[in-house]
Amino acid sequence: MNVERFCIKPGSRLDWKDHDPDATPGCKSKAAAAKPLLANLERLLELQEQLFAQSERALLIVLQGMDTSGKDGVIEHVMGAFNPQGVKITSFKVPTPEELTHDFLWRVHKATPGRGMVGIFNRSHYEDVLVVRVAGLAPKAVWSTRYAHINAFEKLLADSGVAIVKIFLHISPEEQAERLTARRDTPEKQWKFSPGDLKVRTQWSAYMKAYQDALERCSTGWAPWYVVPSNKKWYRNLAISEILVDTMSRLGLAYPPPVEGIASYEIPPAG
Amino acid sequence: MNVERFCIKPGSRLDWKDHDPDATPGCKSKAAAAKPLLANLERLLELQEQLFAQSERALLIVLQGMDTSGKDGVIEHVMGAFNPQGVKITSFKVPTPEELTHDFLWRVHKATPGRGMVGIFNRSHYEDVLVVRVAGLAPKAVWSTRYAHINAFEKLLADSGVAIVKIFLHISPEEQAERLTARRDTPEKQWKFSPGDLKVRTQWSAYMKAYQDALERCSTGWAPWYVVPSNKKWYRNLAISEILVDTMSRLGLAYPPPVEGIASYEIPPAG
Repeated sequence: MNVERFCIKPGSRLDWKDHDPDATPGCKSKAAAAKPLLANLERLLELQEQLFAQSERALLIVLQGMDTSGKDGVIEHVMGAFNPQGVKITSFKVPTPEELTHDFLWRVHKATPGRGMVGIFNRSHYEDVLVVRVAGLAPKAVWSTRYAHINAFEKLLADSGVAIVKIFLHISPEEQAERLTARRDTPEKQWKFSPGDLKVRTQWSAYMKAYQDALERCSTGWAPWYVVPSNKKWYRNLAISEILVDTMSRLGLAYPPPVEGIASYEIPPAG
Repeated sequence: MNVERFCIKPGSRLDWKDHDPDATPGCKSKAAAAKPLLANLERLLELQEQLFAQSERALLIVLQGMDTSGKDGVIEHVMGAFNPQGVKITSFKVPTPEELTHDFLWRVHKATPGRGMVGIFNRSHYEDVLVVRVAGLAPKAVWSTRYAHINAFEKLLADSGVAIVKIFLHISPEEQAERLTARRDTPEKQWKFSPGDLKVRTQWSAYMKAYQDALERCSTGWAPWYVVPSNKKWYRNLAISEILVDTMSRLGLAYPPPVEGIASYEIPPAG
């Protein structure tokens, strides 16, 4: 699978018409996706062990998408392949009073992965140019400065060894309607049903415009944005696993050299 | 499998002679363990979803054991079954200068799981009555007061809804010798080889005495210790999955009631 097709080329425009959330390029069916997905998940675990052992680089995965787009599902079914000890997941919710006394990147910076670690952001600093903009939580004079702040912040991370991959889970409003209905009507899913999501749904086009601006302005060479067709969960999982393998394969990962003279260490008797 | 056999009954003595690290009670072979292990892992994921959805209880899993006993392996192969978003893993290393300016439970308290979460301690506050005692990092007058502090601290957590399960991964010195040798001689494992582990190995009986005291004094009704035979990795994984299913099954977990009048919410058209 060629993952470049999902990448928003730095400096290019994004037209949602070019992105079909139902598309499954490179894989025809759920059945055909099973084997390559499994192979990717095994490869991700190997790459993560080298990332951890080497402890020179880090990986930051940013997940964004409309409600029900599958952020939680991707974390469970794709990132679930990683050794959990090397993963740090942060779900960004409504900022706390303390967080609001700081700049918008303060809480985000604290959550970034250290060397050797995989960090996953379930929502992120991008909410500060998405919900903040659409819901009018800050004036344009404030949120419009943030794209540049985000790019500079992500460059700081990249220069410090953090590989950044940002993924937009792209679903259609029709698919969302089905998923919200399932949440409303299925007993084991009802705990996820939030009436607040319905209000957000009525602002769909405003969000798509806000996403367009964010992805156009913040897809950079050091922190690219990918738009992944996500109406079909099996395709979404496969495509994201491919993007992650592709990203991690280019990090120069390897096991570090062992301690000097390792072969000469005798295992002593237990005392 | 009857997991009670692994539990150190509160107030009872522990004689290491009663615990064979090679034992596999209730399961004869690796092949026979595969199916019940898989069933347990699936059950753990269900229970965790209810824990998360309900958000009234938390689960704290404390893992202790000698070097190479399999703490990392258990986290990967058993706790790996959990949805990573609901898991918080903390590896306790040598305390930082800032941590050392506080009491020994300060850094531990910060790492405890909130409601709905599974917390995993890879090593823990027990190191403060183990390595600290054996390596003489604090005088007896200091470490000997800590058993009572630990019990009071764990009672505080339990009274706040945290279910605590503490697991000692029990291996023999012979098994450790094999595993250290494998780390020394296998290229992909050499990054885990630490000469410092060899010194600790020469203090084996001092550690077993320190573990004995800790497990006898701190296995309580609200935070029991389990000694799990761990020479065979497949048995260790199966036994621990059983202990976790047993613990979580007794927490009264269930999905919370949905928002009032959920059926009457209409899914609006996307705006």
